[in-house]
Amino acid sequence: MIGKVLIANRGEIAVRIIRACREMGIETVAVYSEADREALHTQLADEAICIGPAPSAGSYLSMEQIISATIVSGADAIHPGFGFLSENSRFAELCEQCNITFIGPRSEVIRKLGNKQEARNTMIAAGVPVVPGSTEPLTDAEAGAALAREIGYPVIVKAALGGGGKGMRVAETPEEFEASFQTAQKEAQMAFGDGTMYLEHYVQHPRHIEFQILADQYGNTIHLGERDCSVQRNHQKMIEEAPSAALSEELRAKMGEAAVRAAKAAGYTNAGTVEFLLEKNNHFYFMEMNTRIQVEHPVTEWVTGIDLVKEQIRIADGRKLSYAQQDVRIIGHAMECRINAENPKKNFRPSPGTITDMYLPGGKGVRIDSAIYSGYTVPPYYDSMLAKLIVHAKNRKEAIRKMRSALGEVIIEGIETNVDYQYEILNHPDFVSGDVDIEFIEKMSRG
Amino acid sequence: MIGKVLIANRGEIAVRIIRACREMGIETVAVYSEADREALHTQLADEAICIGPAPSAGSYLSMEQIISATIVSGADAIHPGFGFLSENSRFAELCEQCNITFIGPRSEVIRKLGNKQEARNTMIAAGVPVVPGSTEPLTDAEAGAALAREIGYPVIVKAALGGGGKGMRVAETPEEFEASFQTAQKEAQMAFGDGTMYLEHYVQHPRHIEFQILADQYGNTIHLGERDCSVQRNHQKMIEEAPSAALSEELRAKMGEAAVRAAKAAGYTNAGTVEFLLEKNNHFYFMEMNTRIQVEHPVTEWVTGIDLVKEQIRIADGRKLSYAQQDVRIIGHAMECRINAENPKKNFRPSPGTITDMYLPGGKGVRIDSAIYSGYTVPPYYDSMLAKLIVHAKNRKEAIRKMRSALGEVIIEGIETNVDYQYEILNHPDFVSGDVDIEFIEKMSRG
Repeated sequence: MIGKVLIANRGEIAVRIIRACREMGIETVAVYSEADREALHTQLADEAICIGPAPSAGSYLSMEQIISATIVSGADAIHPGFGFLSENSRFAELCEQCNITFIGPRSEVIRKLGNKQEARNTMIAAGVPVVPGSTEPLTDAEAGAALAREIGYPVIVKAALGGGGKGMRVAETPEEFEASFQTAQKEAQMAFGDGTMYLEHYVQHPRHIEFQILADQYGNTIHLGERDCSVQRNHQKMIEEAPSAALSEELRAKMGEAAVRAAKAAGYTNAGTVEFLLEKNNHFYFMEMNTRIQVEHPVTEWVTGIDLVKEQIRIADGRKLSYAQQDVRIIGHAMECRINAENPKKNFRPSPGTITDMYLPGGKGVRIDSAIYSGYTVPPYYDSMLAKLIVHAKNRKEAIRKMRSALGEVIIEGIETNVDYQYEILNHPDFVSGDVDIEFIEKMSRG
Repeated sequence: MIGKVLIANRGEIAVRIIRACREMGIETVAVYSEADREALHTQLADEAICIGPAPSAGSYLSMEQIISATIVSGADAIHPGFGFLSENSRFAELCEQCNITFIGPRSEVIRKLGNKQEARNTMIAAGVPVVPGSTEPLTDAEAGAALAREIGYPVIVKAALGGGGKGMRVAETPEEFEASFQTAQKEAQMAFGDGTMYLEHYVQHPRHIEFQILADQYGNTIHLGERDCSVQRNHQKMIEEAPSAALSEELRAKMGEAAVRAAKAAGYTNAGTVEFLLEKNNHFYFMEMNTRIQVEHPVTEWVTGIDLVKEQIRIADGRKLSYAQQDVRIIGHAMECRINAENPKKNFRPSPGTITDMYLPGGKGVRIDSAIYSGYTVPPYYDSMLAKLIVHAKNRKEAIRKMRSALGEVIIEGIETNVDYQYEILNHPDFVSGDVDIEFIEKMSRG
């Protein structure tokens, strides 16, 4: 039985995990960098261990420091949160070797799903729809150009080890192909030390629809419905909601079934997310599977009532799923806005500094997941997300009204935030009508 | 159609109402006393009007000031919140005469239900169980003593116009009767200017169980299940929860049906609460009907998903109920702790002053309704309630764990609060097992 969990993360997700553990009667160990002495997670946990200097490489990304802290504190499990080491298969493997329970899937599963080409092949074998594209790794532009003609333009060139939009280029026509391929490959070499590429048909104006999965160690795999995360800026999600305005019950069932099939094909255990691109014609394609808790997990929690972090811990502890597929009911509509320390007027440049005054809303249907407080200094070293504002209401229209009202109450002084920008999105006619795809923010910015 | 609401209240309930209006697209007018210039409700509303000096008599209880403010601001409705003028039938009548929509029942209904003897007679006629007692007003001790023998000891003497525990005495034996009667009558004269009394069998070790009612102007009346408010100190509720650990489905249906019958008998419209005493043998007795929104309404909101303040406004606006009885489903368990500015170590003496530092918890299943912020000065003139901490979880056991965890996070510095005291209750074995009646706090204090 897990009795003590070390949280290998910081910020609101560390606080989220500490709360779940506390409610389950599990002791918590926070780790913190020198810049995070005053951070909320450091203060809230039962114990806190400093693991190194501010830059993540020496602290939150240091496997040695984190494993040492786990052993020293006597914790029997590690929750990796998201980002940092959460999808690092080597770290998960290290935990397995040290007999520490890694709260997530097995290292082998993380590794397989982390390799885009391997994940894609797994999905094709399992009959999960993927975007038409290359089945073999590509290293030269000429072979790529031949394949692109076969697949049909537009095509997108991606790094096999890529992520975060790096090593990725679209070619609209055969004339553009060679340049696009070479630029993407150069970026991939720089970012990942590997120039292996692959090629796909470029899906136009898709929505980002992802399904939440829960799977235990006994072969039980269920999905908790979808999240629509189409509102993105430079591949960074800004607003997420559940359910999606674009899915009929029939399509939800079909995509949910495909998501479960994808997880089973990968031998998945714990909480995970299957990401799809959804075209206007209701064709959907597997993108990737995220092998960790997501930033946007609260919207699923609110429409299903299921505590995903507690389920993660229970599953890692060898327990069976608390829910069967037919127990999952979607009630109402939930929406999340990410509140970031950034300046939308200066190209969303990060805005660290001291919060001199703060007021966050509350009341019916309002949830705040944050790690900030009045007087807190946001360090410049980490992700700029300060807080998540999540609302729940009877339907999408009322959720939008609630989110507007709640955003209108937010006061964060001393630093710049994207609150006003989020408010603008909430009032945009296309957002209000639910007519968004992943290019929405770009289109909105052009006016 | 209601387009602008004046909120004749302050504190967290004023904020709660402002939020509901904003989400419905209704403009809001706050009124505030000179002590409440910096209050949150004053800042949050679209408009704010100063209505007089700090003591309530000259501001929040001044009907003239509030009606004037309504007319001047062009508001077409008044929401009275709770306390202050919310159950004053004269005020409701004044609104009716001025063609201002009073968001509550008709003045005539408030008047009838405000008179304990008249309310009791209405309930007897409707077949709603009441505590055996006098059917006629009593003014002298001798007649009272004769009746007490008939009813059976212990008996309780109450002022016909009473409330808040004033003009109320228990007589355990015939020997005690005369002194008890006369003391209670003297108190009633002092407090209410009227010495009319009535007499009841004293129900021993009861729970306080109340049913939330919604009724529209078209004869549709439903209940939203019960709240258990047995944890009280000097008749002041401290912790409220839904559902009650003491009710079987059968008893819930029976009491709910009686509550609906009570509301219908009174010709009730809008949101209201029927309060019962419940004995260990499952006998229940009508106590009174509160003709307003309650402090503890959020626990019902969370288990039913229904926004009570929005329903109040819709009903007052002449719309039909959005829900039928069979739409009401109770999901999970909700619990509320009232956070008061008071010092439990000094007999719960109020502790006004400036909040020098504040942190309130958040996350899944945590709701805060408050009107405080860091730097806010709690004035000495009003009720000591600062905030309500509400949690929701799968079942009572998990709700208790969540409440403990959330209470443990609360930081309010600069003034004294009852947070640690609430934490103690949450850990008391009788509370944890659900074995509480309205004498629980008294027994706990004796140790």
